[in-house]
Amino acid sequence: MFESAELGHKITKEVWDREVPALREALLDAQYDLAAAKFPVVILVAGVDGSGKSETVNTLNEWMDPRHIQTHGLGEPTDEERERPHMWRYWRILPPKGKIGIFDGSWYTWPIIERAYGRIKTSELDQDMGRIARFEQMLIQEGALVLKFWMHLGKEAQKKRLKGLEKDPQTRWRVTPRDWKHFEMYDTFRQVAERSLRATSTGDAPWIVVEATDPRYQRLTVGKILLERLRGRLDHPATAAPTVRALPRTSIDSLNVLKALDLTRRIEKKDYDEELLTLQGKLNLLARHRNLRKHSLVLVYEGVDAAGKGGSIRRITQSLDARRYEIHPTAAPTEEERAQPYLWRFWRNLPGRGKVAIFDRSWYGRVLVERVEGFCSEADWQRAYSEINDFESQLVRSGSILLKFWLSISQEEQLRRFEERQVTPFKRFKITEEDWRNREKWPAYESAICDMLDRTSTEIAPWTLVESENKHYGRIKILRTLVQRLEEEL
Amino acid sequence: MFESAELGHKITKEVWDREVPALREALLDAQYDLAAAKFPVVILVAGVDGSGKSETVNTLNEWMDPRHIQTHGLGEPTDEERERPHMWRYWRILPPKGKIGIFDGSWYTWPIIERAYGRIKTSELDQDMGRIARFEQMLIQEGALVLKFWMHLGKEAQKKRLKGLEKDPQTRWRVTPRDWKHFEMYDTFRQVAERSLRATSTGDAPWIVVEATDPRYQRLTVGKILLERLRGRLDHPATAAPTVRALPRTSIDSLNVLKALDLTRRIEKKDYDEELLTLQGKLNLLARHRNLRKHSLVLVYEGVDAAGKGGSIRRITQSLDARRYEIHPTAAPTEEERAQPYLWRFWRNLPGRGKVAIFDRSWYGRVLVERVEGFCSEADWQRAYSEINDFESQLVRSGSILLKFWLSISQEEQLRRFEERQVTPFKRFKITEEDWRNREKWPAYESAICDMLDRTSTEIAPWTLVESENKHYGRIKILRTLVQRLEEEL
Repeated sequence: MFESAELGHKITKEVWDREVPALREALLDAQYDLAAAKFPVVILVAGVDGSGKSETVNTLNEWMDPRHIQTHGLGEPTDEERERPHMWRYWRILPPKGKIGIFDGSWYTWPIIERAYGRIKTSELDQDMGRIARFEQMLIQEGALVLKFWMHLGKEAQKKRLKGLEKDPQTRWRVTPRDWKHFEMYDTFRQVAERSLRATSTGDAPWIVVEATDPRYQRLTVGKILLERLRGRLDHPATAAPTVRALPRTSIDSLNVLKALDLTRRIEKKDYDEELLTLQGKLNLLARHRNLRKHSLVLVYEGVDAAGKGGSIRRITQSLDARRYEIHPTAAPTEEERAQPYLWRFWRNLPGRGKVAIFDRSWYGRVLVERVEGFCSEADWQRAYSEINDFESQLVRSGSILLKFWLSISQEEQLRRFEERQVTPFKRFKITEEDWRNREKWPAYESAICDMLDRTSTEIAPWTLVESENKHYGRIKILRTLVQRLEEEL
Repeated sequence: MFESAELGHKITKEVWDREVPALREALLDAQYDLAAAKFPVVILVAGVDGSGKSETVNTLNEWMDPRHIQTHGLGEPTDEERERPHMWRYWRILPPKGKIGIFDGSWYTWPIIERAYGRIKTSELDQDMGRIARFEQMLIQEGALVLKFWMHLGKEAQKKRLKGLEKDPQTRWRVTPRDWKHFEMYDTFRQVAERSLRATSTGDAPWIVVEATDPRYQRLTVGKILLERLRGRLDHPATAAPTVRALPRTSIDSLNVLKALDLTRRIEKKDYDEELLTLQGKLNLLARHRNLRKHSLVLVYEGVDAAGKGGSIRRITQSLDARRYEIHPTAAPTEEERAQPYLWRFWRNLPGRGKVAIFDRSWYGRVLVERVEGFCSEADWQRAYSEINDFESQLVRSGSILLKFWLSISQEEQLRRFEERQVTPFKRFKITEEDWRNREKWPAYESAICDMLDRTSTEIAPWTLVESENKHYGRIKILRTLVQRLEEEL
């Protein structure tokens, strides 16, 4: 993997002086076109210590218009970052469409170091790389151009570089004891890096290994490859993603998981009042459990219009300290959200430890309304299932307690509730033209819902189906599920 | 101030049952209208311990559509918050237009506690309140409806409340030793609170003191006042702000601070090359000074088009570690930014400790382009001077090192540079139709610039005027100023 980067590549000053002005001009042109083309560019600059990563990043900033470049140096995570899934700190700084984001230090840094130090096993490294590959795949499918540079130095070259840096008073500071320690571990790092690069070098986002012995060679190479990839993408916009066919529905009868629900389940008002109080009391206590401070709680509410999401959410929040929860209604994305991958707006709202986030509709919009209404391509929603599963698995691994509720009512009950809402003044705001339109697409929604439940009800994040024809029954079932889950976890 | 809230106000269950449904309906209607009316509502719920603040917040969430309410409980600041000016944590969660933000715990909490504990002087409390009053004034002038509730309990009533909470196993957790400690300090707190409330009770944002002995009275009062204020604003939209006249320009000759600059200053290429290297070396060392970790560095670049901002910024960033700085180009605000006060988009980009933020154009756009092009009203830009001074003073007090550069060139030099840009391919992207249009308004911009320099060059944040007719001279002056400043501060 690194052989071609140990050949002693060199560029003379003459070549440099001749080529740089034209390259710079072309890069600026490309950057200017990028602003109009509206896709983001993600550049990772990784590699061994002392390989001139930040110098290369500086050069790119110098050659191009730095106003449209966001450069991120990633050191230790902050406490807000530590309280959330590992990838949160990268999601929050992804470049929007039209911009270039350069990551000096990236999602590769920690897995590689952890493995080199022996703190994780090879199998865990492979898992991490699998997750990273899927994350990058998602970025690409969301339209991003992903460029990954690995700056390489052979063992002798690295030693020479570190010594050279140490000799110069101007650069001495840059060589830390850690750098020498890592140099001692050169072979281990090389092995781990090679394994990681191999696992994540894909057709769309291959690793580009650049020899770092000669700075002119290194920078000119990076600049030229960046130009080539940028230009390629600008001049030949990605053709429409190949149509992905939905898995054929093998069912030959009309039975499905929604229809199998027993919507006649109900609870009498008297029992409801009593049980509500008991469960709310328990929830109140659990919400103050000291162990909750080590977790966050994420509740996802999905259901057709008028299924009773809002009413159920209020029965939950009544037991919670208002300072601990936030409700995130999921409406049309904002301009900044539209300039990012679709999961971005959920990532930005993930709660810290000890906090509760309630999503009133959620990331499942991608495979429900966006699918049915055609707001995204079939390829987009087809890939969303696994992206969502990945997202939720990261959430859970980071210590979030995740519950997902599907509130189910019949078409007849929905009609009854719509009509009731129209005559109850303080419920009027809840019903819009759009609700009536959605209603007409009931069968399409039903397929989408069944697919969603089939593909995203996972062991770590199962769906709870809630028979909500009788509102009271639904509310109690949700509260009881939540209380049980918290009792298990805390 | 608190007398009317110690009368034993009470509401019977009958009145409650009769009034709540109608109130709830009206609140929902108002909230629905708010979404269309597009102004933010900021509700502060403050008051003594045990006064049912979070219960009241819960009630508001229950009565209204919680999807359009953002409730914030503010505990200890996170490390990202501690690294920035105190108000940063509030700015980042201000509600956008059309939404209600409820703050349980607010910008009043800490000054009041600090004073009660004797950790700050009365004069410092007054300063804090002055700053808060100006902040709220700014919110109001940006269109916000600001409602401030103070939940009051007399001394005996508070004692009774705390004992009552302790008796009930369900609520015992809520009474902490700190609550009892604060109870011992009741008179001090009362005195400090009264002083704070008095200083910040303005015509637009008066404090509303609510007796908290009877929960029904308390919640119904809050609900009704909220409705009244919301409805009042919705039904009678603020009339146009009174026209504020610009301070008459007393100058009777054509002399001004810009014209007084000696634009013939220049530096020879040889000297430039030499001095550039020396200064960049110094800057490089200073940027790595360990004391910088206690500060952040904020550089503001302003100047007419083609004044050389970008070139100068690059001469700075060449000496910096790319992982330490971010350049924030200031273009048209995004949708999310437009839904917030105009300073919001600069607050969100304030750097943490040890970091450098370079603003290529900045918050001064308000008193330059927005003023000249009429993008905001005269009242808006007139008040901006003091808002900016407040903002910068908060920055500096929090440990930021702030430098502001005005890059000055003559109209003739600008023309020369525009023409040059049009024929240099890789500079072409820098020149747009808008640049030519702006050029025609040179005299209007000149007045705006002089006003800006006069009113915002303060002792804590002075402007550095940079003669940039000769680019090299300008760059060296900026580098030298920055190096000197860092040498003084570190």
